[in-house]
Amino acid sequence: MGQSLGVAVLGAGHMGADHIRRLDRVVGGARVVAVADPDAERAKEAVAGREGVAVRTEAEAALDAPGVEAVLIASPGEAHEEALLAAFARNLPVLCEKPMVPDPAGALRIVEAEARLGRRLAQIGFMRRYDSEYTRLKALLDGGRLGRPLMLHCVHRNVSSPPGFTSAMLVNSSVSHEIDAARWLLGQEPVAVTVHRPRPSAGAPAGLLDPQFVLFETDGGALVDVEVFVNCGFGYQVRCEAVCEAGSARIGEERAMAVTAAGGLREEVPQDYLVRFADAYDREVRAWVDAVRHGRVTGANAWDGYAASAVAEAGVRALESGVRTPVDLAPRPALYGGTGA
Amino acid sequence: MGQSLGVAVLGAGHMGADHIRRLDRVVGGARVVAVADPDAERAKEAVAGREGVAVRTEAEAALDAPGVEAVLIASPGEAHEEALLAAFARNLPVLCEKPMVPDPAGALRIVEAEARLGRRLAQIGFMRRYDSEYTRLKALLDGGRLGRPLMLHCVHRNVSSPPGFTSAMLVNSSVSHEIDAARWLLGQEPVAVTVHRPRPSAGAPAGLLDPQFVLFETDGGALVDVEVFVNCGFGYQVRCEAVCEAGSARIGEERAMAVTAAGGLREEVPQDYLVRFADAYDREVRAWVDAVRHGRVTGANAWDGYAASAVAEAGVRALESGVRTPVDLAPRPALYGGTGA
Amino acid sequence: MGQSLGVAVLGAGHMGADHIRRLDRVVGGARVVAVADPDAERAKEAVAGREGVAVRTEAEAALDAPGVEAVLIASPGEAHEEALLAAFARNLPVLCEKPMVPDPAGALRIVEAEARLGRRLAQIGFMRRYDSEYTRLKALLDGGRLGRPLMLHCVHRNVSSPPGFTSAMLVNSSVSHEIDAARWLLGQEPVAVTVHRPRPSAGAPAGLLDPQFVLFETDGGALVDVEVFVNCGFGYQVRCEAVCEAGSARIGEERAMAVTAAGGLREEVPQDYLVRFADAYDREVRAWVDAVRHGRVTGANAWDGYAASAVAEAGVRALESGVRTPVDLAPRPALYGGTGA
Amino acid sequence: MGQSLGVAVLGAGHMGADHIRRLDRVVGGARVVAVADPDAERAKEAVAGREGVAVRTEAEAALDAPGVEAVLIASPGEAHEEALLAAFARNLPVLCEKPMVPDPAGALRIVEAEARLGRRLAQIGFMRRYDSEYTRLKALLDGGRLGRPLMLHCVHRNVSSPPGFTSAMLVNSSVSHEIDAARWLLGQEPVAVTVHRPRPSAGAPAGLLDPQFVLFETDGGALVDVEVFVNCGFGYQVRCEAVCEAGSARIGEERAMAVTAAGGLREEVPQDYLVRFADAYDREVRAWVDAVRHGRVTGANAWDGYAASAVAEAGVRALESGVRTPVDLAPRPALYGGTGA
Repeated sequence: MGQSLGVAVLGAGHMGADHIRRLDRVVGGARVVAVADPDAERAKEAVAGREGVAVRTEAEAALDAPGVEAVLIASPGEAHEEALLAAFARNLPVLCEKPMVPDPAGALRIVEAEARLGRRLAQIGFMRRYDSEYTRLKALLDGGRLGRPLMLHCVHRNVSSPPGFTSAMLVNSSVSHEIDAARWLLGQEPVAVTVHRPRPSAGAPAGLLDPQFVLFETDGGALVDVEVFVNCGFGYQVRCEAVCEAGSARIGEERAMAVTAAGGLREEVPQDYLVRFADAYDREVRAWVDAVRHGRVTGANAWDGYAASAVAEAGVRALESGVRTPVDLAPRPALYGGTGA
Repeated sequence: MGQSLGVAVLGAGHMGADHIRRLDRVVGGARVVAVADPDAERAKEAVAGREGVAVRTEAEAALDAPGVEAVLIASPGEAHEEALLAAFARNLPVLCEKPMVPDPAGALRIVEAEARLGRRLAQIGFMRRYDSEYTRLKALLDGGRLGRPLMLHCVHRNVSSPPGFTSAMLVNSSVSHEIDAARWLLGQEPVAVTVHRPRPSAGAPAGLLDPQFVLFETDGGALVDVEVFVNCGFGYQVRCEAVCEAGSARIGEERAMAVTAAGGLREEVPQDYLVRFADAYDREVRAWVDAVRHGRVTGANAWDGYAASAVAEAGVRALESGVRTPVDLAPRPALYGGTGA
Repeated sequence: MGQSLGVAVLGAGHMGADHIRRLDRVVGGARVVAVADPDAERAKEAVAGREGVAVRTEAEAALDAPGVEAVLIASPGEAHEEALLAAFARNLPVLCEKPMVPDPAGALRIVEAEARLGRRLAQIGFMRRYDSEYTRLKALLDGGRLGRPLMLHCVHRNVSSPPGFTSAMLVNSSVSHEIDAARWLLGQEPVAVTVHRPRPSAGAPAGLLDPQFVLFETDGGALVDVEVFVNCGFGYQVRCEAVCEAGSARIGEERAMAVTAAGGLREEVPQDYLVRFADAYDREVRAWVDAVRHGRVTGANAWDGYAASAVAEAGVRALESGVRTPVDLAPRPALYGGTGA
Repeated sequence: MGQSLGVAVLGAGHMGADHIRRLDRVVGGARVVAVADPDAERAKEAVAGREGVAVRTEAEAALDAPGVEAVLIASPGEAHEEALLAAFARNLPVLCEKPMVPDPAGALRIVEAEARLGRRLAQIGFMRRYDSEYTRLKALLDGGRLGRPLMLHCVHRNVSSPPGFTSAMLVNSSVSHEIDAARWLLGQEPVAVTVHRPRPSAGAPAGLLDPQFVLFETDGGALVDVEVFVNCGFGYQVRCEAVCEAGSARIGEERAMAVTAAGGLREEVPQDYLVRFADAYDREVRAWVDAVRHGRVTGANAWDGYAASAVAEAGVRALESGVRTPVDLAPRPALYGGTGA
């Protein structure tokens, strides 16, 4: 495989800095050669101690730095469309953090642009597809031993929501992971969304509809329900139970060192998604680097990124209207023959 | 407490025979003194080997047998209204298997009759209120340590449905236990029902909408969701997770001897509700006998029986219409001041 | 089955009073007709509210009271030998709390006395044989699916020891339950004992060797190890793992309502053996009453009581000497043909 | 940190090839620059597709290849002493797979050689110190919340033993991991060993004493018991429970996707230590590379390697003699002031 892969990282915030560290220390076969961030200081800090890394304030400038062979986009969602198109224009393979493009119209433009290229360049950062529990569940469902999946019961809980989090973001940011996971696990597209809103928790900021209970119906007749509760107060939990014709399978049960002391048995619950999914991020980036070095693109594709946006957008309308809301997807280009599985 | 309590058992089928065995061998302080069943042979068989038990084909004749101090109704649901009114007329305390009366109108007549008496005579057989896990969950919620309950996630699965089971019965027979449990746990009344119907399992009889996913909204703003799946094929499972403002609690996780052998770790799943809730039935009948001997009536009351019928009936309409369906409850008589808790 | 069984209860302390309550309220088919306790006030209190119960200060006087058909011995261990012989002299079936007789010589006299009678009258109160988890494990081992048992790993923990508890009592009182359970599960007799003594816990009273780690070798080549820790501080735990040629099985894992709140997932640990084994006591007494009413005797027999005493006594010598100590059992009378299983 | 670390890997067998893959793909910051194996073909195969890697049949020749800055020893145990001394002579940091040196005398020569150097160069590959569960347990014990550890209950099971596995190897190969883990967790040295030998499993090869039950007493008064069963037939299991004065903590409970289907709930058990400890190996090598690049040496040291050998050797004598056998450790050089923690 020879030389390591030269990567430009766009965005040097929390996620970008974490990916830089990952490319440098955790994943073999890659090296960061360029970083772009509007905040030049932040970019410099993220690559402190590394030599020969081009630091730029413009994404395109970073893509044009010497040695760039691939791009990792970790900038804010609004910057993704332009960055993806710039990578496409340079024929650079790209790993783009979710959401691919927040609004469905922009997401569809990416799909169409890549379809015009006639080959896949983009992988979208739905890292749950690389989590060991999700991959085992996927293999179990695909193996067919449990028969057809009928329902997915999902739980997505955060300790607390960041400042500025809105009721719509429970659906289009938090639940977007479940949207992709459900599409991938089932190999089916959502066709309608209903959102139930229990009386909000006293632990949620005033005005935030938290928790919500979101139901997706799919074109295969399956039902996906998601409890999303972003101010649960006690931990980060992501669970999924697939109920099938011949059995059910559960993942995401908190499992840790069990301590029995005064009062009972106790297991820790992770407080943060970076703890729960640390290995999944590592595997995702490693798989991407490996694939790119072998001239391939794998993982979630641009269509998956578009579908997640379109379904989430229907979800937000369902939240606002209180009624069952159909999902309208554009026709799928031939390049994305399957359902993203 | 002196003499043991003389009980007439109405109905000598599966459930009636089990209660006769229970009163005779498992519960102290009571004895069966009369049995009624239209099938006299069945009634005789159910009390074989016992002396001095009056065997009758008519319920009222059994109530008039010597030594009858209390009544346990285990006949089919259609016979309950008449039997309850007969017990009321004789001022006999009564434990009535669920459903109290299947149709809400008939159930309301029982409520009104008991309200006219001005004292409680009837306890309804919602035995989950006596299950050790449910009672612990109830105590936890009432204790307030977890804050207000926001959602209940419930699962109700049977290996297979009996012949003649209809789509409506998933709601008005199977889910009726969850209706009562939710009302009791939350101390709130359901105000609307929505039923989602995934594509039926290949394991369900042709034409049966199985599984279903039923959602209740309560007057306290809580959301109760129930997966009901009566042909799941693998076991009997009743689970409940209460998601509260400051934590969540789960009961009903299958927990048994863990055997690790070729291929993995394995725990048995009970196949039958009589296994899962055997202790709850014992405790229920024991508590009823104890209370009656002390001149008291406890447990679920006639209003709870009526409310379960009325909510279930709204659920069946929601199943048929496919849309959110309001629940209309009659005004609650003063005799049932609380919410059945 | 006609009339209920008239039982004399010897001993009205904590355990005796609990059995009186059990015979009166929990178990059908029996009634307490006589009680003996040197402390007449305590005896009266234990049967307060019941009519027609003979209260005596002498055991034999209670056995001679009218209506006595069977005896339940719950007096202190030193009084057991005389009480058992008195029951034998009157041909009365007897359920004797453990230890049957504390010293092996006295226990052997009971075995010989019953052997001379030529029929079984005594059942010894090793109630774990009635615990649902132990009975499942027994059935699994007997079924042979896991092959021959090679090792039993046992844990026996109490929150704290009562005043006056000695180092020897960890072996001859606490571990005696494991001795019987291991003999019963394996169908093998212990042939040697070794006791390891880690440095005592700071939580144990001064001078008490607590915890201890006790190993039994059996005549079938199995190894049984027991952690006994009677001042563990956090709960009552009894666990057992049977490691077999083709798999392992575990019982006694604490399993309760799981509460997830700030800081983690938590399950309660029972604080008391009466909580953990409440159902086992109920089943034991119910099975005894049923058997006696049908003219049978089941459960652990006098030989099991003797063997437990003899093995415990070897264990105490092993504790004192620090070395592997052989167990010497008397020849087993023909009345107890099997191994107590 | 600039340039990546040039590593020579000694041994291209199963473990060596795995480490080459790890250095190349999984761990950032390092690259394999030389490989030695007596079987040149095997060495070539292990680095197929990589350019610029020196392939040698002699260990010393590989150490002298251009660009070698550190050494990873994955050759058979008998070759370790010579390889370690050769690395010391060249002042090269070294990560040496366990056993450091199989016989205690040879191991002590390594300790003395490094002590003469006056600085640490060697890290020994006890990878459990990098397992996330073990590190959490270590942190818990060190934190002191549970008080002093009194006992460790350990289980070490393999599906089946490789050809040629001897009874002694259960102690000096399999249990050596528990020896190191116990020393590290407790910060105490073993002072005596006793080995119990139940009748061997029918699943073990003829003549192999499998399972065994090994007990270590430590200089701090703790007791460590280990079930080692290398032909258990059903999976790879490594468990540890630390019983402390104020609570107990358990790790290694098999935890996986739970599938409920006909007959019960089922979780997979890993079949191989490379599955169970894959992450620990990755973390170990990553930590070593990071430390070396920063001029440090961490992890288990040569004294830990010596102590494991010496304790294992006493264990083998205990197995052969059947009696409690003292452990004799040489005086610890000042370079290894602590206990390897």
